[in-house]
Amino acid sequence: MLHRNLALHTDLYLPRWMYIYWKQGRHHEKVVFDLYYRSNPFSGGYVVFAGLENIVHYLENVSFTEADIAYLKEQLGFEDEFEDVLRNFKFTGSLYSVREGEVIFPHEQVVRIESTIFEAKLFQTALLNIANHESLIATKYARIRQAAPNETLLEGGARRAQGVDAAYYGTRAAYIAGFDVTSLVSAGRDFDVPTGGTMEHADIQFHDDELSAFRSFAEMYPDNTSLLIDTYDTLKSGLPNAITVAKELEAKGHRLKSVRLDSGDLAYLSKRARKALNEAGLDYVKIVVSGDLDEYVIQDLRMQGAEADTFLVGTRGITAYEQPALGMVYKLVAREDESGELKPVIKVSSSKVKTTTPHKKELYRIIDNETKKFKGDYIALADEPVESYTEIDLIDVRDPAFKIKTRNFNVKRLLQPIFLDGKRVYDLPSTSEIRAYHHEQMNGLWEEYKRLRLPEVYSVTFSKPLWDLKLQMIRNTRIFKEV
Amino acid sequence: MLHRNLALHTDLYLPRWMYIYWKQGRHHEKVVFDLYYRSNPFSGGYVVFAGLENIVHYLENVSFTEADIAYLKEQLGFEDEFEDVLRNFKFTGSLYSVREGEVIFPHEQVVRIESTIFEAKLFQTALLNIANHESLIATKYARIRQAAPNETLLEGGARRAQGVDAAYYGTRAAYIAGFDVTSLVSAGRDFDVPTGGTMEHADIQFHDDELSAFRSFAEMYPDNTSLLIDTYDTLKSGLPNAITVAKELEAKGHRLKSVRLDSGDLAYLSKRARKALNEAGLDYVKIVVSGDLDEYVIQDLRMQGAEADTFLVGTRGITAYEQPALGMVYKLVAREDESGELKPVIKVSSSKVKTTTPHKKELYRIIDNETKKFKGDYIALADEPVESYTEIDLIDVRDPAFKIKTRNFNVKRLLQPIFLDGKRVYDLPSTSEIRAYHHEQMNGLWEEYKRLRLPEVYSVTFSKPLWDLKLQMIRNTRIFKEV
Repeated sequence: MLHRNLALHTDLYLPRWMYIYWKQGRHHEKVVFDLYYRSNPFSGGYVVFAGLENIVHYLENVSFTEADIAYLKEQLGFEDEFEDVLRNFKFTGSLYSVREGEVIFPHEQVVRIESTIFEAKLFQTALLNIANHESLIATKYARIRQAAPNETLLEGGARRAQGVDAAYYGTRAAYIAGFDVTSLVSAGRDFDVPTGGTMEHADIQFHDDELSAFRSFAEMYPDNTSLLIDTYDTLKSGLPNAITVAKELEAKGHRLKSVRLDSGDLAYLSKRARKALNEAGLDYVKIVVSGDLDEYVIQDLRMQGAEADTFLVGTRGITAYEQPALGMVYKLVAREDESGELKPVIKVSSSKVKTTTPHKKELYRIIDNETKKFKGDYIALADEPVESYTEIDLIDVRDPAFKIKTRNFNVKRLLQPIFLDGKRVYDLPSTSEIRAYHHEQMNGLWEEYKRLRLPEVYSVTFSKPLWDLKLQMIRNTRIFKEV
Repeated sequence: MLHRNLALHTDLYLPRWMYIYWKQGRHHEKVVFDLYYRSNPFSGGYVVFAGLENIVHYLENVSFTEADIAYLKEQLGFEDEFEDVLRNFKFTGSLYSVREGEVIFPHEQVVRIESTIFEAKLFQTALLNIANHESLIATKYARIRQAAPNETLLEGGARRAQGVDAAYYGTRAAYIAGFDVTSLVSAGRDFDVPTGGTMEHADIQFHDDELSAFRSFAEMYPDNTSLLIDTYDTLKSGLPNAITVAKELEAKGHRLKSVRLDSGDLAYLSKRARKALNEAGLDYVKIVVSGDLDEYVIQDLRMQGAEADTFLVGTRGITAYEQPALGMVYKLVAREDESGELKPVIKVSSSKVKTTTPHKKELYRIIDNETKKFKGDYIALADEPVESYTEIDLIDVRDPAFKIKTRNFNVKRLLQPIFLDGKRVYDLPSTSEIRAYHHEQMNGLWEEYKRLRLPEVYSVTFSKPLWDLKLQMIRNTRIFKEV
C-alpha cells in the first residue's frame, strides 16, 4: 500500500505549468517551497506533525508510466519531446522536514523543498494531501490522549473513516499520538501497533442467548475474553451473565479480562458495573466504554466519576469530526535569479495572515537548560548562525510588540535533511520510535500550551534580519500596488 | 489502486469470531446482514448511495496471503488446520445492492449480504468503510449541485482530503453527484471525469510581474487561459492585467476563457470584475470563484447577485466538513436454524432507533404513474409479492400513525443482484452512466424532500407482515429482558 506510484495524484494546473516552464526553458531554475499551516485546529495550541514516511515513499516512487504520459498529453496537448522529459522524471532535489511526532505551531515551515521549479510543482497536491491528513488526525488523537492520560486508549474508527487510507494511516497517527491499541488488523501489522477488540452484537444474536455467546468467547479465549454486555439489557442481563462467566472462568483458574459498554449512559452504567463486579469479587475485571467519544466527552465522563479503564474511540477520532481538515499550504518563498543567486519572493495578501514569509529559512526550538521545557521557536534566515547565539529575543505573546531577552538555553534545529540532491539521507524511524519521540516533545511543552480550550499562545519569533526582509518586501509590493 | 487485496482491512474481532465459529463447526451456517443508516446527514432529506464499484472490487480481490495468515495466527493463536481454511477463503455468497447514485433514506437496507457467517463477518469493516465514505461525499456534493443548478461546478479538494483515497474516490463521488470537472488528474483519468484547472500564486511569483505570468499562460494556451487575478490586488492589478491579456488574445483571434477570484469578498469582487470585463467588451470571459465554498455560501453568494459562472469547491466538499462521517451499520437480520430454515433475529435497544428490523427483506420504490415522481418507499418481507400489488398503504409522514392508501403506481425493486453464489451477475456501469442515473433519480424526488434545511420527511413504510413480525419479536425480547 505504501508503494503506489502517485505521479498523477496531482491537480491539473501543476503539470500544465511544468509544461509551460519547460517550453520557456525555465524548468531547471531552482526554487524553495515551504509547507506550513496558519492556525491551530480544534481551537487548540499545537499540531502534531505526521506523514513524513508516506511523503518519503511518495517521492521515492514518483514516476510517469506510459499510460500516465499518454493521458497527460491528451489533457495538456504537449509536444512529443516533452514525453521524454516526463519519462525521465524523478526527484533530484532536497527535502528538509521536522520529524514525525514533532509538536509544531502556526507559520512554521515544517517541510522545505529545494529543487527545480519543474519538480517542486508536481509534488504540491500529494505532499499537502498526506501532511494535512496525517497531521490533523495525529493532533486530534494527541488531544484525546491528554484527556485520558492514564487510561488505555483503543482506536477503532475504520468503518467510519473517509476511505481505506484514512482508516489505515489514521490508525498509525493514533498510535504515534499515544493510543495503545488498534482494532484495525492491516495497520496493526504494517505499523507494528498492538491489536485488540472484543465482540459485536451480531455475535450475541448468532447464539440462542447472551450467556451462550459469552461462554463461546470464554471457552476459546479464557485469558483474553472481553464481553459486550449491552445487547439486551446491560444491568439485568449483560452484567449478571458476565459475572456468571467470570466465576466459571475463575473456577478453571482464569480471569475475565473486561466488559464493554457501548450504549446507554456510560457514566451511570460504568459505575453500576464497577460496583456489581467489585461486589462479586471481580475487581480485576476492566471496563471498556465506547460510543461517540472524543476528548470532551472523555473529560465529562471522568469528571462524573465514570469507571472506565479503557476508552474505545471511533468516528470522532478517525475523522477529526470537530474540524475535519487542516489547512497546510505549500508556498514559493525563493527562486534563483538570472545570475543563479537565490532571491526571496513574497505573496502579499489583504489578509495579513495570508502574506507569505520570504526566503530560505531555518526553524529552531529554544529549550531552557534548567527546566528542559520549550521557551519558544525561532525562525531565521538560513545563513544566520543561530546555534551559536547565547542570547535571543523571543516575542512576548501577551504583547507581541515586545520581546523577552532569553539566555541559558539550548538551540535545537528542527528541520532534518531527508533528501539531499535526490538521495535519501534519513533513516525512517519505526512507528514506536516516533511515538516515543512525540511523547518526549509533549513533555517539553508547558501545560499552558496544551490546554484543550483557550490555551496560552506559544511564542514563534522571526529573527530581526528575517523580519526586516519581510517588512521591506511588503513595502516594495505596496509601492507596486499603488502604481 | 482499485485492485488492492484488503483481507486484513478488518477489525480484529471479526476474524476472531470467524475462528470461534469454525472451531464450533458453525462457520457454514447461513446468515443475512443488512447495511443501512439511521439518520440523514447535514440535516438534509436524503443520502446518495455510492461505493458499490469499490465494494465489488473488494469482494473480487479479497483473499489471505501467507503473510496475512501468519500475522493473524500470531494475533489470534489459532490451530494449524485453520490456516488452510483462510488460504481457501473467497466470497461464495450473494450480495444485493441499490445502484450507485440511488437516492436512499433512513432505515432502508441498501446492501444485503446472504452468505455463511464466516464470510459475512469478514466484510463488515471494509464494506462500511467504503459505503460510508463514498455515500457521505456524494450526498454532500449533491447538495452543492442543488445550490448551484446552472453553474459549472469544479471539484478541487485533494490537498485537504483525508488521505489519497479520500481525494480519489471523493472526486468520483463529486462527479456522480453532478459536478462537471475535477482538478485531480488520477481520478479524471480512471473515472473518465473531465479535468480542468487554472494557475496558482506561485506561478505569478515565479515571474517578475503578474502581467508576464498571464502572458506565459495565454501564449501557451490561447484558447484555454484562466487567470488567477488576486495575487497582488484584484481590482487594481489582476483585473486590468487580465483585460490587457484578453485584448492581446483578441487581436490574435483568441478569447480569454476565464478569470479566477480566490480571496477577498467574492460577491463584491465578482460584480466589480463582471462590470469591468463587460465594459471592456469581454462579456464572454467567465468568472470562477473559490474559497471555502459549500452549499450555504453558494446560496448566499447567489442571493447577493455574485457574478460567478463557475464555483470551485475544495475543503468543505471533499471532507463533508459540516458532518464528516455517515453512520451506516451492518446488522445481522436472519440466520439459519438447525433445520436449515432462515429465521429472523433482532437486536432490541433502549434507543428505539437502534432496534434492528428483522429478516430478509426487499426494498421497493412506489412511483406515481402520472407524475413519475416517487410517492414513497416500501419495505416488505422477501416473499411478499409487492410487485403485483395495485394498492399500497404508505405512512403519512405528517402523522406516522396514519397510512395513505395509494393506487395507480409503478413498483420498482431497488436491490439489484450483484453476486449470486459468489459469481458476479452485475455489469458495473461507467461513472457517466451512474451520474446520469443519479440525475434521473433526483428528478423523481419532489422538491420538498430536497430542501437543504428542514426538508419534508420522505415516506418509508414497512409492510404489515414485516411490522407485525418486528413488534412480535420486540415483545418476545421484552419478556426475556424482564426475567
